Amino acid sequence: MIVIGETINSTRKPIQEAIARKDASFLQRLAQAQAEAGADYIDVNAGAFVEREAELMEWLVQVVQEVSEVPLCLDSANPAALEAGLKANNKGKPIVNSVTAEEAQFRKVLPLILQYQVPVVALALDDQGIAKAGQDRFAVAKRLIGALCAEGVAPERIFLDPLIQPISVQNDFGLIAIEVIRRVKQEFPHVNTTCGLSNISFGLPERAKLNRIFLTMAMAAGLDSAILDPLDHELMDAIKASNALLGRDQFCMSYIKAFRQSRASG
Amino acid sequence: MIVIGETINSTRKPIQEAIARKDASFLQRLAQAQAEAGADYIDVNAGAFVEREAELMEWLVQVVQEVSEVPLCLDSANPAALEAGLKANNKGKPIVNSVTAEEAQFRKVLPLILQYQVPVVALALDDQGIAKAGQDRFAVAKRLIGALCAEGVAPERIFLDPLIQPISVQNDFGLIAIEVIRRVKQEFPHVNTTCGLSNISFGLPERAKLNRIFLTMAMAAGLDSAILDPLDHELMDAIKASNALLGRDQFCMSYIKAFRQSRASG
Repeated sequence: MIVIGETINSTRKPIQEAIARKDASFLQRLAQAQAEAGADYIDVNAGAFVEREAELMEWLVQVVQEVSEVPLCLDSANPAALEAGLKANNKGKPIVNSVTAEEAQFRKVLPLILQYQVPVVALALDDQGIAKAGQDRFAVAKRLIGALCAEGVAPERIFLDPLIQPISVQNDFGLIAIEVIRRVKQEFPHVNTTCGLSNISFGLPERAKLNRIFLTMAMAAGLDSAILDPLDHELMDAIKASNALLGRDQFCMSYIKAFRQSRASG
Repeated sequence: MIVIGETINSTRKPIQEAIARKDASFLQRLAQAQAEAGADYIDVNAGAFVEREAELMEWLVQVVQEVSEVPLCLDSANPAALEAGLKANNKGKPIVNSVTAEEAQFRKVLPLILQYQVPVVALALDDQGIAKAGQDRFAVAKRLIGALCAEGVAPERIFLDPLIQPISVQNDFGLIAIEVIRRVKQEFPHVNTTCGLSNISFGLPERAKLNRIFLTMAMAAGLDSAILDPLDHELMDAIKASNALLGRDQFCMSYIKAFRQSRASG
């Protein structure tokens, strides 16, 4: 399970304020905490600053890489900001987050993926928006995977995101995402799957509980990665338990070790 | 999700002792607590008393039905004990737990199911034992379902149990059970699935966490019912959250109500 730490995101008020006042040490502590908690990638997003997004993305990349060796996930809908992040990056291969099947967006982001030979989060949406039915959503996912592969992006570099929408808005949004994940893994076993987890619980009480349970269900359907809060210990524990339950933890050794550590420290 | 409360089971030492000293009020409190916690059935098992199992099964049924309207799940490998339980039952239709594809066992339990027209837990095992591979386990399940239906048992009355074995013994035992559940629901949508949940975590630390996560994964694969401890509040909360996540809770109303109740009481 590849964990992409989500906390350095300018759509969150405290992060937006920290970026606005260029509070590098606050952001660096967040990066370090996520790395220590087990994040495999650290997401950086400056999207709340529409006019200055590219400049601030560059700054975020520099700030985080001063204190962390963990590769980044460059999170923007703006190709110029993605390019600024890629140029500033000097620690391993970052993930580009994201490309879509929207014609114009695809044509702008594709050259960056090819030039920098980086993995990419591919969102299952096109110029018609987000398909409401599972089979239509999967059809978009399939088309996007095909288009990326046809352009020379290796399937292993693709992180297909089925797009998580809140179950409070439509009851079967969780089922649709799970169906897309399962079908992508069936038809494209080399393609990775990922998702922005916390959307599932928007508008409902006890969101952490819903996020945690949905994550384990999605892992059972083949989810390889998620953008989530690695500082949520119960969530990270659920990932370890799920790995054991899904046969990905030989002799359950990691699970047993994690439990012993948690007992020793708590 | 149909919850079968597991706590009145003579393989547990305190229960065995309570049955041995005929402590009806202790067992009645357990039955009432499970009913209040949301159990749809209450399992009763006197299997630890090999010589007196039928007599004690009859007593257990009487004792529990003195204080509870919740139907029972008569839990025994011994057809004579099942028959004693069925005769003593006077509150609705109990579940017979269980029948298997073992030739002799099948021939002895089938007449009881037909005579009393009751639902039955059907264990996916035959005279060769428990199949190690998922596809073989499913083949046994399919054969057992077919044999029951051919004898006139309605598919809706069958609760197919894939048999849960500990992941500490073999890493993919969780995956095998999930695969059997998924395939049974695909090929036999009218057949119910159930399982004895807690076996999954045998021999590992933090068993409640593993049980809870495995249950939600199995629900996502189509599990309709489980034999579990309804007094585990976190487990019951996870069922409510899973129902919402799986689109089985219109407008998430039950989930929202449960959360408000838990806030009010805790």
